[in-house]
Amino acid sequence: MTEIRVGLIGTGYMGKAHAVALNSVAAIFDTKLRPVCETVCATTLEGAQAKAWTFGFKRATADWRDVVTDPDIDAVVIASPQSTHLDIALAAFEHGKAVFCEKPLGEDLAASRKMVAAAEAAALPNMTGFNYIRTPASQFAYSLLQAGRIGRVHYLRAEHTEDFLSDPNAPSHWRTQDRSTGCMGDLAPHIINAALRLCGPIASVCADIRTVFAERPGPNGPEAVNNDDEAHFMCRFKGGAMGHLFISRVATGRKMGYAYEIYGDKGAIRFDQEDQNALWLYLAEGPEAERGFRKILTGPDHPDYLPFCQGPGHGTGYQDQIIIEMRDFLTAIETGKPVWPTFRDGLEVQQVTEAVWRSSESGAWAEV
Amino acid sequence: MTEIRVGLIGTGYMGKAHAVALNSVAAIFDTKLRPVCETVCATTLEGAQAKAWTFGFKRATADWRDVVTDPDIDAVVIASPQSTHLDIALAAFEHGKAVFCEKPLGEDLAASRKMVAAAEAAALPNMTGFNYIRTPASQFAYSLLQAGRIGRVHYLRAEHTEDFLSDPNAPSHWRTQDRSTGCMGDLAPHIINAALRLCGPIASVCADIRTVFAERPGPNGPEAVNNDDEAHFMCRFKGGAMGHLFISRVATGRKMGYAYEIYGDKGAIRFDQEDQNALWLYLAEGPEAERGFRKILTGPDHPDYLPFCQGPGHGTGYQDQIIIEMRDFLTAIETGKPVWPTFRDGLEVQQVTEAVWRSSESGAWAEV
Amino acid sequence: MTEIRVGLIGTGYMGKAHAVALNSVAAIFDTKLRPVCETVCATTLEGAQAKAWTFGFKRATADWRDVVTDPDIDAVVIASPQSTHLDIALAAFEHGKAVFCEKPLGEDLAASRKMVAAAEAAALPNMTGFNYIRTPASQFAYSLLQAGRIGRVHYLRAEHTEDFLSDPNAPSHWRTQDRSTGCMGDLAPHIINAALRLCGPIASVCADIRTVFAERPGPNGPEAVNNDDEAHFMCRFKGGAMGHLFISRVATGRKMGYAYEIYGDKGAIRFDQEDQNALWLYLAEGPEAERGFRKILTGPDHPDYLPFCQGPGHGTGYQDQIIIEMRDFLTAIETGKPVWPTFRDGLEVQQVTEAVWRSSESGAWAEV
Amino acid sequence: MTEIRVGLIGTGYMGKAHAVALNSVAAIFDTKLRPVCETVCATTLEGAQAKAWTFGFKRATADWRDVVTDPDIDAVVIASPQSTHLDIALAAFEHGKAVFCEKPLGEDLAASRKMVAAAEAAALPNMTGFNYIRTPASQFAYSLLQAGRIGRVHYLRAEHTEDFLSDPNAPSHWRTQDRSTGCMGDLAPHIINAALRLCGPIASVCADIRTVFAERPGPNGPEAVNNDDEAHFMCRFKGGAMGHLFISRVATGRKMGYAYEIYGDKGAIRFDQEDQNALWLYLAEGPEAERGFRKILTGPDHPDYLPFCQGPGHGTGYQDQIIIEMRDFLTAIETGKPVWPTFRDGLEVQQVTEAVWRSSESGAWAEV
Repeated sequence: MTEIRVGLIGTGYMGKAHAVALNSVAAIFDTKLRPVCETVCATTLEGAQAKAWTFGFKRATADWRDVVTDPDIDAVVIASPQSTHLDIALAAFEHGKAVFCEKPLGEDLAASRKMVAAAEAAALPNMTGFNYIRTPASQFAYSLLQAGRIGRVHYLRAEHTEDFLSDPNAPSHWRTQDRSTGCMGDLAPHIINAALRLCGPIASVCADIRTVFAERPGPNGPEAVNNDDEAHFMCRFKGGAMGHLFISRVATGRKMGYAYEIYGDKGAIRFDQEDQNALWLYLAEGPEAERGFRKILTGPDHPDYLPFCQGPGHGTGYQDQIIIEMRDFLTAIETGKPVWPTFRDGLEVQQVTEAVWRSSESGAWAEV
Repeated sequence: MTEIRVGLIGTGYMGKAHAVALNSVAAIFDTKLRPVCETVCATTLEGAQAKAWTFGFKRATADWRDVVTDPDIDAVVIASPQSTHLDIALAAFEHGKAVFCEKPLGEDLAASRKMVAAAEAAALPNMTGFNYIRTPASQFAYSLLQAGRIGRVHYLRAEHTEDFLSDPNAPSHWRTQDRSTGCMGDLAPHIINAALRLCGPIASVCADIRTVFAERPGPNGPEAVNNDDEAHFMCRFKGGAMGHLFISRVATGRKMGYAYEIYGDKGAIRFDQEDQNALWLYLAEGPEAERGFRKILTGPDHPDYLPFCQGPGHGTGYQDQIIIEMRDFLTAIETGKPVWPTFRDGLEVQQVTEAVWRSSESGAWAEV
Repeated sequence: MTEIRVGLIGTGYMGKAHAVALNSVAAIFDTKLRPVCETVCATTLEGAQAKAWTFGFKRATADWRDVVTDPDIDAVVIASPQSTHLDIALAAFEHGKAVFCEKPLGEDLAASRKMVAAAEAAALPNMTGFNYIRTPASQFAYSLLQAGRIGRVHYLRAEHTEDFLSDPNAPSHWRTQDRSTGCMGDLAPHIINAALRLCGPIASVCADIRTVFAERPGPNGPEAVNNDDEAHFMCRFKGGAMGHLFISRVATGRKMGYAYEIYGDKGAIRFDQEDQNALWLYLAEGPEAERGFRKILTGPDHPDYLPFCQGPGHGTGYQDQIIIEMRDFLTAIETGKPVWPTFRDGLEVQQVTEAVWRSSESGAWAEV
Repeated sequence: MTEIRVGLIGTGYMGKAHAVALNSVAAIFDTKLRPVCETVCATTLEGAQAKAWTFGFKRATADWRDVVTDPDIDAVVIASPQSTHLDIALAAFEHGKAVFCEKPLGEDLAASRKMVAAAEAAALPNMTGFNYIRTPASQFAYSLLQAGRIGRVHYLRAEHTEDFLSDPNAPSHWRTQDRSTGCMGDLAPHIINAALRLCGPIASVCADIRTVFAERPGPNGPEAVNNDDEAHFMCRFKGGAMGHLFISRVATGRKMGYAYEIYGDKGAIRFDQEDQNALWLYLAEGPEAERGFRKILTGPDHPDYLPFCQGPGHGTGYQDQIIIEMRDFLTAIETGKPVWPTFRDGLEVQQVTEAVWRSSESGAWAEV
């Protein structure tokens, strides 16, 4: 058993989640590598010091370079704003660190490509943070699909829908300014990642993207909204299936509509993150009169559930997904082998996103 | 109170449903007009006579002309194959009958246009049979939308999915031969009708249509499937909303997936015909902590429920939709005013269908 | 094919439902016997005449004796108030009629016993109207249990809950006066009937019965409520299972909570009339990871569904249950053999009800 | 900010959960007190040392006395078998420690009474571990009830059902031997605790307890099962409501059926732990046509949710309940004031359990 010394960059929402994961993962998974919380980096030194106490880190800094250059640090977790990902990751690889980076990888496709190139040139452990696909239910969906349990897949309908901006009177906000924080930039990567994971590569897309509320109240009157509220696109998978993805931050009533339904010629699967401990499975087998979608509650027989709880139906939650990610990152470090989703997998998601943008602008199908 | 003498053409699945409706509608709705079952027409005289007994008709015939020309008949219900609709309807109007015609109206757009022209020239009561939209739940959805209860609508996601051909080994069949019995011809009209009713006219569509199983077993080996199994299209409503419709006869596990979800800026609505006695409504009002999709069970406070049952939650079913249609047809006759959906409304559905075909063939957006 | 001439006594809620059933059953089920609507009886002649028109009856009367003594009537449907059941049924049997009587059979146990004795002495077709158990879903539940599909049953939890008096300010009413219209008198028979049908005879019960709202507003101030709002009881089935039944007319939010869940050693069944077209089935077979309650939508493979609709998931409703009852009554007449539930089956329900009252009064277990 | 030094006794299922909670609680809740993991105690020293590594403790021991007597330890978490609770707790209080003890408190009522007496004599922080009631959803249910949101409560139906022994061929096991590990001893305390929390004190109970499978396969042939598989009881709350609780470890298909439904005169609440991130609420307000049970997804507006995740619907899980418990324990230590559920609250649960046993044995109602 070995200690692995970790630096954490970013102490916001995702930074906190990773701090908890670092402190819990060894107890939960009985991992061979035990993370030790070395340095935490926030935007101010004071803030970093406060977080060092609650997050359980030894040192604090306001300069991410202190983290990536520290010889006493083995691995870096990047949970800072997207615009910082590229520089931090490149420096970290330069200093031989394993890197876990939150999604989306880089600010644009060019940045992401540089990050992948650096990761692969350095041959260092690297992962992108797509947490939702790590639930025991979605992992089980993946294993059912791999095993051919629902046969040849011919249709996927999926969505990532929330409603945090569904009120037209919700004020103008940093989230309403940049393409990277629009629904395509911020929410779509999660469900595109799911589509790729579950149904394989996408060949082409045909999209429609919309700013539903063109203006929002600002401190001095209405301000323009400069990014997208709602988007959807049809796609054709290389494997032959058709698909449709719907992404929205204005889908009134939807809180965490990360959901998919997949139709194969022997069965079907349905999942909705709003009830993340259930997977619905239909199998076209047995007497017709007894067929129906079954609500399978996750339990010890499903991937990565048992370490959290010995009883089925007791349930895992959001934070647990981050702990599973951390276990995977430790595995990547321990084995020296790529663990899905690597930086390259993160890049592939962005390539789909780019094609969606191109299609929406041209009004025609676009190749990925 | 007046009797209205009805002839029924067709004694299959839909003919039977209309026979029951003719016999029940007065008792259920206490209508002013009471239908009297005069003549039933089947493909053979023997068959027609047998049905006359069980359906409670006075006369039987194997020639639909006997029905449309009979001076003792006031109204005709057309429930025969689609290819016969045009001739029957034209003759019926010529002889001054009110006409109820099952969807889709004509075999193609040209036929439907002739039917509409004849109906409007004759100024006789005419209706198209789109039964699913008549449930108390969908009628209530319509009234909520009309009242602005969920605000300005910006997105519709809908489907008409069944799985009666989801098994690749299901044999070749008359349903697998003609465009009119493919998923776009047979299933799509229902859900397009719903989309138009609930969200208004569609400006343009972008579609992808697919034969998932190119061959099916025939008596002498594999036979080609000549129509579509699965289709989907994005659309833009004239009112500004975006939409997506998914249609399939191979959606394993879906039995009657006539379903829609509609997002407005004050709320959202969800409906699934598989649980036709419930409407899900989310309202962005009241304390945030108490908000959620509410499952409203249809009852006496919803349209056309009370005549079937005085207690809420006791439920209506498929046959009851046909009875509601018949009441509407009687109302059209009684008042002499058009009752939705007229032949023209049926034509509008087909115009969307045509645009979907054009789009799928061109790979680009098509105007309706 | 033979006509069976029917007289209907009662034109309220249930009378109307039976009128529709009489007019529809032959078309729906293609029955050998075809009911002909002869005479309808209401409390006034004028009312009866009006209903004769809408219900499609030939004759009208305000005296039920006209119906039961008419030699041109073969069968009588009793849908009048409970207090009239005994006299009508006895007279009808005396004149050789087949009798269908709404539940509960007689006003009290003594009345019901006389009705059973008369029915059995006359050896005439007789049935009690327990409609809810006739849904395709509940019939399928019964067949699964009979086939041992969920193994040995050890627990039943059931309820009949509605909320039509849940508002404490709902006014005093004829329903709040007599024991027969309290929750035990009016609602409990349905779910006791279900319990007996599904799990067999009940040996003993232990009950608690309550008037939740002791007074309700009357026209001249508060009036006492003289019957029960809410009741529940534990029971022991002769077959060894334990059970609990909950009955309420004040169960806020419950519209038609006729629901049960049954646990066996190989599976479990759940049903709720509020979604009457679904049966939930859990089977303890196959891989543990794939087990879950499956939502089976009723369809052509389930009892008595296909005559209503060829497609699964399209759904039957309240009125259809009455049509199924009528088919059963015709079968009883046609075959001359008892069809469940006979008058005797109705009596057995009342025997349980009586034991529940005794137990609640004594505070101890009571034998049925 | 102060460190609080903690000793953990027990490294099984619950011990692990508490270890994770100790490591996470400060980061999650930004608590004033920060737990420091001092000593972990297992049955063997080797085992304790292994766990010290993965759980992040400084010291290990196989003797719980080392923990309770250690002057460098401020608080003790007891997660060892029930039979050890009494001795450990008494010794811990003697040495001035705050004590968190897993439910059920003592092996029997006498033991629990001693534990309560010791806790209250020492005037030291003490809590019992009833984790399920700590979900944001159940806490929100509690706050709705406290606020009178559903009015006066008149009925509770609740259950704690699992199916880990539903297979009659599941082998004989330590869980099938002692009263304390039967369904009344092991499962019932959770749901009794919920009933007391949500609806107040119970006055009397009437119960039926059953060993469904009298024998189970042992290594040398069938062995007797010496405790209960299934139990249910009616109760009367002091506040006037009636209730029914159903407890089972053989409820085939139920994985974590910790569920309740509560009826008041202004609304109703439903909850099922199998979907722990949702609370169903019905409010008898607003237009009748818009009423229905609403599925409220837990989010930042509900108790103790936000620290885990900023987005609603993202969900908490089993482990998170333990973290919430730990926060409460820290609050009790920090403030010096009792935090529910104290040892006394744990005792009250056991008093109900005892009355249930008495009632089942006597066949009559028993006072608590």
